[in-house]
Amino acid sequence: MADRIKIKKEDDLIGWYNQVLLNSEVVDFSDIKGFSVYRPYGYEMWELSMFYLDRSFKEKGVKNAYFPLLIPESFLSKEKEHVKHFNPEVAWVTMGGDSLLDERLAVRPTSETIMYRSYSKWIKSYRDLPMLINQWNTMVRWETKETRFFLRGRENLWQEGHCVFATEDEAIKNTEDMIKVYKNFTEGVLAVPVLMGFKSENEKFGGAVKTYTIEAVLPNHFASQAGTSHYLGRNFSKAFDVKFLDKNNEWQYAYQNSWGISARAIGIMVLVHGDNNGLVLPPYIAPVQVVIIPIINEKSEASVIGYSQKIYDLLKSLGVKVKLDERREYSPGWKFNEYEMKGVPLRIEVGENEVKADKVSIKTRFNGKKEEMPFEALNNISEKLSQIQSEMFARAQSIMNSAIKVEKNRESFIKTLKSGSDIVKAAWCGNPVCETSIDKETGASSRLIPMAEEELIDKKCIFCDDPAKYNAYFGQSY
Amino acid sequence: MADRIKIKKEDDLIGWYNQVLLNSEVVDFSDIKGFSVYRPYGYEMWELSMFYLDRSFKEKGVKNAYFPLLIPESFLSKEKEHVKHFNPEVAWVTMGGDSLLDERLAVRPTSETIMYRSYSKWIKSYRDLPMLINQWNTMVRWETKETRFFLRGRENLWQEGHCVFATEDEAIKNTEDMIKVYKNFTEGVLAVPVLMGFKSENEKFGGAVKTYTIEAVLPNHFASQAGTSHYLGRNFSKAFDVKFLDKNNEWQYAYQNSWGISARAIGIMVLVHGDNNGLVLPPYIAPVQVVIIPIINEKSEASVIGYSQKIYDLLKSLGVKVKLDERREYSPGWKFNEYEMKGVPLRIEVGENEVKADKVSIKTRFNGKKEEMPFEALNNISEKLSQIQSEMFARAQSIMNSAIKVEKNRESFIKTLKSGSDIVKAAWCGNPVCETSIDKETGASSRLIPMAEEELIDKKCIFCDDPAKYNAYFGQSY
Repeated sequence: MADRIKIKKEDDLIGWYNQVLLNSEVVDFSDIKGFSVYRPYGYEMWELSMFYLDRSFKEKGVKNAYFPLLIPESFLSKEKEHVKHFNPEVAWVTMGGDSLLDERLAVRPTSETIMYRSYSKWIKSYRDLPMLINQWNTMVRWETKETRFFLRGRENLWQEGHCVFATEDEAIKNTEDMIKVYKNFTEGVLAVPVLMGFKSENEKFGGAVKTYTIEAVLPNHFASQAGTSHYLGRNFSKAFDVKFLDKNNEWQYAYQNSWGISARAIGIMVLVHGDNNGLVLPPYIAPVQVVIIPIINEKSEASVIGYSQKIYDLLKSLGVKVKLDERREYSPGWKFNEYEMKGVPLRIEVGENEVKADKVSIKTRFNGKKEEMPFEALNNISEKLSQIQSEMFARAQSIMNSAIKVEKNRESFIKTLKSGSDIVKAAWCGNPVCETSIDKETGASSRLIPMAEEELIDKKCIFCDDPAKYNAYFGQSY
Repeated sequence: MADRIKIKKEDDLIGWYNQVLLNSEVVDFSDIKGFSVYRPYGYEMWELSMFYLDRSFKEKGVKNAYFPLLIPESFLSKEKEHVKHFNPEVAWVTMGGDSLLDERLAVRPTSETIMYRSYSKWIKSYRDLPMLINQWNTMVRWETKETRFFLRGRENLWQEGHCVFATEDEAIKNTEDMIKVYKNFTEGVLAVPVLMGFKSENEKFGGAVKTYTIEAVLPNHFASQAGTSHYLGRNFSKAFDVKFLDKNNEWQYAYQNSWGISARAIGIMVLVHGDNNGLVLPPYIAPVQVVIIPIINEKSEASVIGYSQKIYDLLKSLGVKVKLDERREYSPGWKFNEYEMKGVPLRIEVGENEVKADKVSIKTRFNGKKEEMPFEALNNISEKLSQIQSEMFARAQSIMNSAIKVEKNRESFIKTLKSGSDIVKAAWCGNPVCETSIDKETGASSRLIPMAEEELIDKKCIFCDDPAKYNAYFGQSY
């Protein structure tokens, strides 16, 4: 039931976003704050995401497994930075049936602790390494801030990879490889450009040595973290006794990492690409890539349906996700709105004229362009879809680039961050105390430090005048 | 690390079962009772199961979705038989961070209530029906009985389908279709024969009008429920206000069903097919279908590895799940044990003789048969695998048939059920009071009543002498 969107994207981004997601039947509210219902149309985008990501993981030798949903409180407490990070936002199971439990059980906020307990039993020798394990599941974090579909939920669809290595080099390489897998996914499949780098001391994961991140820029120029990969060093292997006999028959603590991406990436894609008519889906993540809508009058019915079916059969045989909507209960105009709302990349209208001329009329969702082409030209539909994918990415990339401001002036730095009008790139000392002061004064945080070494924008820190250590991106975020 | 199995299958079925599952690295204990860890080798069997089942569901028009993990207590209470059934075994979340929650939240024991709350919002008209939705997730039931890997856990991997229809006929047809999908899966993929029918009043699902079931017979002649499909009538649609405007513009309550199969089916497969050397996997569920083990001495090394690789490449190109184990740290003998333990259907040994004669030596796991064949014969490997699949099913079916005893004598009926030595088929009145008495006297329950009408074994009930209504299967179960 495609209600039109009443809130404009440029007027109220989150109001618009909620309307688009609800009207396009991607998600719905449940009766519990922060717990979304993923409707079939939205869940199919997550299934496609899982398909692409899972294939990339398996190409790197990663295997899937499944670890318990509930984690004893004592496990979470074993790594001291980790427990500090997560305890305030844990949902606790305290009763089983009518009985009080002896120990509270956390509903999985993340699985480092319970997985590494198993790893310590399984890993005995260098021959057991590397151990590369991933799981697809949901995690629960009892957010006290305002929750939002995909971007910040109390329950979140995600995957968490947890790998163990004999050497630091292998561990760091894999940690960096996985953030690149995420970048390839968001850019290649979601057509969402991202910045890639590592987090500051304040922003890194509880228990990590170094956190790598990819960050997207939203239409309001807020930053949004789209995936992270944590190098854990031996912090957890020492806490959980994950060690192995090396080739010299000596016990060594192992090097570990963990990496995760959640359905938040889909929310970011919706924010980046959607417009005031609804979703605008890049072809590679669209559950339906082409919709065919027959326009029928009594006289033309048989020939129009026949021709529509012929188009459907051709596209199907080419491996395109195509839908033919023949329903009589809805008018063509209603269907046009419906599939615009649902962001279907290409719409083919079939009427008497098309049948007679053996042609097709196609409308491209993302730029509104209408064109006619001979039936035979449909054989190139896959090229057309990948062309749309590229153009959507290029458009998003130029918007992202225009949202980043390189800054050398302290007053201007503060003013921009306070207003949230841009992402700011500046020379920075990297000091956690400095970062806390920036946060206090502007409400913004450092988003990332580029992975590759860059020439410094300035010799001194933009905020505290200490010597600059690297360039960093700062910005507001949800 | 393949420790040999010390407990024999015929001496202690569950002791043997646990050893096989642990040694073959299918599952492991976690530190919480009833919560298993699914290791990569075991989880891959579940991934294959999901793949086959999901395809069958989608062929019937079912879409996947995801609903919240946590369910308000008030939802569970809305359907009175349902709450009676589930409340004693619910894990309750009572705290979020440091705060006590206003209302307890159940960790999903099953999702009828939370899904139908959404359905009541989404369904407005006959045009919205049928609505066919499935979700893959885990459910938690706080079992107080002894828990067992796969067969009875507190957390269980499964899927739950929940469909809504305008008419009773469509709803019943789909309910029966889905139990047949499960039968096709257990018999066709797991090579586990099952009995199919419906449950007695005592044994049906809380809130169902009729529960369909498939039941496998374990080697100790206990029965095990492998999948169920529940026709819910309008019990839930009335409790959750799931109604639609029909073509005459009148409000009608909808007809519903729900159907689920869990990873228990994998446990049953292990019990049915395994032997005293470990797992014995039917080819269609085996993560590795063929393992190639080169037997190397210094002289022959290059040619043996080359020939092994040639076999690997051929099998790979034929779409076979093949593994070449070239590791030097383990001896061929160690590897033979390892892959027998892991139940790999076919093992190919490659030594100097094989290379010279351009032949292969193959051992079939399930019957221990060794044979030699020319290299070219490997082109027929898929036929060989499907032959093994059929033979394993046929063997299991004849064992199942021999475990079923048709009974007319009351004393003998009671004696057999008490001892659990066989599944008993007998004429029965179908009265819940009679069933409760049978349970009290024998500890066994009715397992199912065949779907198709059958000639009655006797005119009167085997237990209470009332007129018999149908034939029923009785047996012990875990």
